[in-house]
Amino acid sequence: MADKTHGHEHAEHKHAETHKPEKKQEKREQKEDLVGITVKKADDFSEWYNQVVQKAGLADYSVISGCMVIKPYAYAIWENIVHWFDAKIKATGVQNAYFPMFIPESFFKKEAEHFKGFIPEVAWVERKDKNEERYALRPTSETIIYDTYSKWVRSWRDLPLRINQWCNIVRWECKATRLFLRTREFLWQEGHTVHATEHEVEQEVMLRAEQYRELMETQLAVPVLMGKKSKSETFAGAIYTVALEAFMPDGKALQMGTSHNLGQHFAKVFGIMYKDKDEEEKYAWQTSWGISTRLIGSIVMAHGDDRGLILPPRIAPIKVVIVPIYKNDSKEVVLSECKKIESELRMFQTKLDDRDEYSPGWKFNEWEMKGVPIRLELGPKDMEKGQVMLVRRDTGEKMAVPRHGLEMKISSLLEQIQKDMFRKAKMFLDSSIKPAKDFSELKKLIEDRKLVKAGWCGSEECEEKVKSENGATIRIVEEADHKGKCAVCGKAEKHTAYFAKAY
Amino acid sequence: MADKTHGHEHAEHKHAETHKPEKKQEKREQKEDLVGITVKKADDFSEWYNQVVQKAGLADYSVISGCMVIKPYAYAIWENIVHWFDAKIKATGVQNAYFPMFIPESFFKKEAEHFKGFIPEVAWVERKDKNEERYALRPTSETIIYDTYSKWVRSWRDLPLRINQWCNIVRWECKATRLFLRTREFLWQEGHTVHATEHEVEQEVMLRAEQYRELMETQLAVPVLMGKKSKSETFAGAIYTVALEAFMPDGKALQMGTSHNLGQHFAKVFGIMYKDKDEEEKYAWQTSWGISTRLIGSIVMAHGDDRGLILPPRIAPIKVVIVPIYKNDSKEVVLSECKKIESELRMFQTKLDDRDEYSPGWKFNEWEMKGVPIRLELGPKDMEKGQVMLVRRDTGEKMAVPRHGLEMKISSLLEQIQKDMFRKAKMFLDSSIKPAKDFSELKKLIEDRKLVKAGWCGSEECEEKVKSENGATIRIVEEADHKGKCAVCGKAEKHTAYFAKAY
Repeated sequence: MADKTHGHEHAEHKHAETHKPEKKQEKREQKEDLVGITVKKADDFSEWYNQVVQKAGLADYSVISGCMVIKPYAYAIWENIVHWFDAKIKATGVQNAYFPMFIPESFFKKEAEHFKGFIPEVAWVERKDKNEERYALRPTSETIIYDTYSKWVRSWRDLPLRINQWCNIVRWECKATRLFLRTREFLWQEGHTVHATEHEVEQEVMLRAEQYRELMETQLAVPVLMGKKSKSETFAGAIYTVALEAFMPDGKALQMGTSHNLGQHFAKVFGIMYKDKDEEEKYAWQTSWGISTRLIGSIVMAHGDDRGLILPPRIAPIKVVIVPIYKNDSKEVVLSECKKIESELRMFQTKLDDRDEYSPGWKFNEWEMKGVPIRLELGPKDMEKGQVMLVRRDTGEKMAVPRHGLEMKISSLLEQIQKDMFRKAKMFLDSSIKPAKDFSELKKLIEDRKLVKAGWCGSEECEEKVKSENGATIRIVEEADHKGKCAVCGKAEKHTAYFAKAY
Repeated sequence: MADKTHGHEHAEHKHAETHKPEKKQEKREQKEDLVGITVKKADDFSEWYNQVVQKAGLADYSVISGCMVIKPYAYAIWENIVHWFDAKIKATGVQNAYFPMFIPESFFKKEAEHFKGFIPEVAWVERKDKNEERYALRPTSETIIYDTYSKWVRSWRDLPLRINQWCNIVRWECKATRLFLRTREFLWQEGHTVHATEHEVEQEVMLRAEQYRELMETQLAVPVLMGKKSKSETFAGAIYTVALEAFMPDGKALQMGTSHNLGQHFAKVFGIMYKDKDEEEKYAWQTSWGISTRLIGSIVMAHGDDRGLILPPRIAPIKVVIVPIYKNDSKEVVLSECKKIESELRMFQTKLDDRDEYSPGWKFNEWEMKGVPIRLELGPKDMEKGQVMLVRRDTGEKMAVPRHGLEMKISSLLEQIQKDMFRKAKMFLDSSIKPAKDFSELKKLIEDRKLVKAGWCGSEECEEKVKSENGATIRIVEEADHKGKCAVCGKAEKHTAYFAKAY
């Protein structure tokens, strides 16, 4: 591989002292985001996460308890996710729209399971007129949207109806909040489709789940398991939920997205009916599906290291950062060449860091903290040799590459980094999945923070036992070959279940 | 002009009967959006507006009183607006971010004018814990954002800071609500910038106002007046407000966007200070600026006619609709050619309406209601002649044009429509501006629903008199030559003011 070759070349390459990121900078300024991370990822994952999120400039806690400020750098990542996924769903028949964020209390009550699932964390609006019913701030929009759908859907010609909304969501969490992972307000998309048949609904649920998987694996470089939830973990009001689950380096599963088969539950309570070709009035079939700003948290956790964030190239707001290396006499010529390179590499959202008040070493630290995939260094000696130095953020590998043909080289290196990051994360996921034959094995593996694959009889008792004794839940279930036994009770298995602690 | 020529050609062109949009369709179905508008724009503007918005499929009232559902067709217009403006501000140093939608009550109280201006229409969140202070749903985000800015801004190096957010806004209006124009929740962008000097702030305020003007005039084809607001109409907490004002066909002004010079008011109460190059701590200078989904209402009002919506090409979600004209024996060949054309014209968001269950006449009505700029008709006779029929939505002009070179023709025709729509709206604006020398003239012109340009002494008494006696407000003020007199009190003028009734 070309990259490796360049890496070896660099062993012989004697570079200016300032190329070494280890060097302490003299001109360090008092700015919060310049202090490195004070704990190791392996030692205190939770503290490490909080520091990376804040020091890389992704998000801050706000004065509103449990709410976050999404800073420009993280918002740009979110925009890249939105841009990719929005194009994907539009190409498969979805249109965007916007529904009110207020939901009458009576709407929740119409679907009993839905009410039970969401009421505890609903925030209500104060009403001056006490005769009017209470309005909730949407924790999810099934009810308000389906009340409207009941007016829009008349005939089979109106189906399928596929609408998505990008919006903010409020869930007044009482659990401890964490930036991106659990906050009282977050951003998401929610897709809501209506179909004529059960078969179409099943296809739609899988189509959206597959699109999520593609987003997560090819863009975020976060591998996921995809499968149905157990009944107790199913969306409140759904027939079944297909979930995308990632596994984080601290040994906890993270639910990345869900796609629900709502059957006719909501259609029946909100009266979504259509006149079919046979002139009969029928209840419609529905799906809903969503992903949120939580995905940004998964990127931090899955890829980051003790130096900070590591961003997969495809969703990185800045893919290449140029750090010029100069002394006073070479400043002009180096900067001028760097500007030329910046302009040549514009398509990679390349940023030239030409701030005079910071040393190169200081800049190396900052851009490593922010996880920019490639650092490009250029000094007078590089110019003499007709080369630039490239440093991969994910591996730390350095390589001298010819100045000529740089664009092609960057393009292929970014692709390589994307692939390598996914491969590394996939190896971690695969190696974390461990089979358990019985309850003591299961218990031990959960304690070891593994993702445990085991037979399950399908009973809520066994599921509950694992939860109360080990703090682990079933993340997804798969079809079993029905030859094995339930790892909890020893009866015949109905499913293969994946157990883990979870965020 | 080529267009005109084609129009004349068509005088000789004998076309299939179904080309006439006047023809009543036989297969009319029972669907709400197919019933035409039952009032004329000139007779009952308000009812006409409500019908167009709903029948063109832009928005619906929701079950939540005063809130709207933005339907996919209007949301696609909003996306076009967002896309254009977002690129514009990003190219001039702005980054997007997201701040909590909740604002502590105490934050409002910090800036007295701001508090007075916004408190009456604030919606509050119910708090379970009565010891905690109330949270408002953001009616605008100056306070929550500037509290955060006070932690971010440290040194002159952090400036200018330019952040924008696209979000929903809640203003619990007690006035009658109208779709897009005044609803309790709407979508908008709010830009918030911080600068080192007063001079920079003045430049920033004008830069954003000019970008708004460009958006409105070149994209929405809605001409605007731009100028400062009088003190009583200035944003609560600002030094001055620059407003963009359009004038609607019913003789009322519509505020389209505003850009505020906040001076150091907020910086002082929220403690936004920076260490300058001279090592001194100084208060920062600020601006904020916004536009909202109200702009969609302006497009409807400015351009629509008795047949429905007329969309300017640049923001139209569908720029060309193809309606095939066939009998049973020609169906296959016509449809196949239409599909070919659809694919050739994809860059214009071209839609082929190949629904078999509706007649061409029915389709003409529907796409006219939805304001698609160009209708392309193709029948067997057109194919023989190597031509297609184009119909402009804005003028109704029909033209037979050669099948060959269609792409170029459509491209130039869309540009022509865009220009013509702006020119027509500009002529209306210009002809609506009438000078008044004294109070009786002013009164008469306001009654005639004109935009009255008159001298103003600058006193709030005179402004208030016009408001209470005529229901008109000062929309913007300009520098006067100080030779004329105040049209209200007869004293020397300080400004030239534009008076009108307003939305």
